[in-house]
Amino acid sequence: MKSKLAYAVSAVALLLATPALAQDATPINDEELRADAQLLFEPIPTVQPAPEGNPITREKVELGKMLFFEPRLSSSHLFSCNTCHNLGIGGVDGLEVSVGHGWQTGPRNAPTVFNAFFNIAQFWDGRAADLAEQAKGPIQAAVEMNATPDRVLSVLNSLPQYQQRFALAFPGEADPVTFDNVAKAIEVFEATLITPGARFDQYLEGNNAVLNETEKQGLRLFMDSGCASCHNGVNVGGGEYYAFGVVEQPGADILPRDDKGRFAVTETATDEYVFRAPSLRNVALTAPYFHSGKVWDLTQAVGVMATAQLGAELEGTEVEAIVAFLHTLTGEQPDVTYPILPPNSSTTPRPELIVPAAN
Amino acid sequence: MKSKLAYAVSAVALLLATPALAQDATPINDEELRADAQLLFEPIPTVQPAPEGNPITREKVELGKMLFFEPRLSSSHLFSCNTCHNLGIGGVDGLEVSVGHGWQTGPRNAPTVFNAFFNIAQFWDGRAADLAEQAKGPIQAAVEMNATPDRVLSVLNSLPQYQQRFALAFPGEADPVTFDNVAKAIEVFEATLITPGARFDQYLEGNNAVLNETEKQGLRLFMDSGCASCHNGVNVGGGEYYAFGVVEQPGADILPRDDKGRFAVTETATDEYVFRAPSLRNVALTAPYFHSGKVWDLTQAVGVMATAQLGAELEGTEVEAIVAFLHTLTGEQPDVTYPILPPNSSTTPRPELIVPAAN
Repeated sequence: MKSKLAYAVSAVALLLATPALAQDATPINDEELRADAQLLFEPIPTVQPAPEGNPITREKVELGKMLFFEPRLSSSHLFSCNTCHNLGIGGVDGLEVSVGHGWQTGPRNAPTVFNAFFNIAQFWDGRAADLAEQAKGPIQAAVEMNATPDRVLSVLNSLPQYQQRFALAFPGEADPVTFDNVAKAIEVFEATLITPGARFDQYLEGNNAVLNETEKQGLRLFMDSGCASCHNGVNVGGGEYYAFGVVEQPGADILPRDDKGRFAVTETATDEYVFRAPSLRNVALTAPYFHSGKVWDLTQAVGVMATAQLGAELEGTEVEAIVAFLHTLTGEQPDVTYPILPPNSSTTPRPELIVPAAN
Repeated sequence: MKSKLAYAVSAVALLLATPALAQDATPINDEELRADAQLLFEPIPTVQPAPEGNPITREKVELGKMLFFEPRLSSSHLFSCNTCHNLGIGGVDGLEVSVGHGWQTGPRNAPTVFNAFFNIAQFWDGRAADLAEQAKGPIQAAVEMNATPDRVLSVLNSLPQYQQRFALAFPGEADPVTFDNVAKAIEVFEATLITPGARFDQYLEGNNAVLNETEKQGLRLFMDSGCASCHNGVNVGGGEYYAFGVVEQPGADILPRDDKGRFAVTETATDEYVFRAPSLRNVALTAPYFHSGKVWDLTQAVGVMATAQLGAELEGTEVEAIVAFLHTLTGEQPDVTYPILPPNSSTTPRPELIVPAAN
């Protein structure tokens, strides 16, 4: 669970700490390193977390999984949630920015769905409070799935199997097939997409042998250099908003100037170029990096971050150690059986491939 | 297995039989009906069939599954085999014709991958002898996955996990990462995508109670009206090539005149508008119908077939009975765990979204 207090305490602790970039690679004392890390991070729980006000049931998870893989939520019947949040490749699509309806590209890199439940809010700018609200976005975005709530409900109501499954997932509701319930079912399925068991988590839990010396040096550097000021908590990030370029704005190739980030949500000047710090869970699987998707190499991404956020030039061996540590954040990938979806009925809306002319 | 002899015998038997379209719905004698049906059809085997010269191993199936779901086999990294042969929706995409690279559409409706192994050959025009040859087509087609063998091998060779898996799947080969082996692994996985246990198969095997009276009347009509002349064997079709419009060519809305079918393969005048009779296994799941994908309703499709192929006008109740029978051809859908794919490496080719201008 997110603990705001834990984040605040960690941030203060880090502000007080002296960055130790040029430290000698003195042998790691595991007890000290783990104690420091435990102040900042938590393992991904092995117990299924539950969204508030949206209890997890087997029926809802199964329905949510069907909807997650359901291409008929898009007007073309070509894109499902899984297209851009592919469960086989780290919950992302491996593209700079996603491709959607009519081969249009979206403005930002698709964030991973894995462990997204633990983020403070959803989307790079945090404009959706939770996964249910998030799920409604891409379904309706003209450059993504290009559907409407009405169309989605027409599809679902045309398929008796879905009507039945909504009734089971939302018992006691007179009309359970609603767009809100579509979002709630997807939220519940996505809450199951967590990746426990990362080697880092095993280390946090007391297993010294699971990380090698370089990875431990990387963890030490990650904490002492300041990376963990933003990337902390259960998701090693995802907990707060920060300017991209605290110290020095990266070039427009990496930080395009026309995307002002959270400013579009809050309309507050201090939120220009502010984004939610991404979770670094499974970061070795989720290239390309940053909201712009412009950096493909994790080593380069760490270098960019050091300069932009910390005003530090890390040495090659230091970056390598941090990258080695980041690889230990890869957890057990979800074990998902591909869902069987109901066949079209005579009243199912037909796929629409037409792309409206841009204004 | 396909038995050419069985097909030939069946066809002769049917030519000798008198069509009995206007038969009274006399009660079905199960022993007679089953005996007649057993002459024409075989159940989907519950034992895994094996492609010739391409032995099935666990390692090859697992590799083939990864490749089947691998979007990086397309130049955009957006399309996998599963995009158009979606295992959740009957092994098809539910589109008239598939959408591929650059939002281009292909010329024909995507045939189901389920039980495709039992077809005499692959594609609507039979231009690929087997599933391995078939698999190479869409990967390279400019309007589908738009890749090249070289690109595919660059992707796979950039990912050590794939190199390892090819070595395990093709032991003893000096350089196992080849385009031929990509196709072979996919073929082996696809050979596992069979759907045994259809109610029709249970009936063939002796269970009278599994079909209702209407479905049995439908089976009787399906055989006696001549449908089974083309749609017979283990796949209830898929075994031979026939003109679309044996008796009367359908309109250009259903049979576009610029697609001459198998003529493009054989360049033989008698092969104009000749197509492989599709398997009717799982036909209730695979709308829209025909190579053109122009008919969405199974009842309408049966009507079109009766007119075009048999020169018969079936009565409404007869069509309904046949449609009821066709629904009994839905088998157990494959139980597939979504594969976890290797993350990109620094040498993995980047996705290419550019669409070359048409000539």
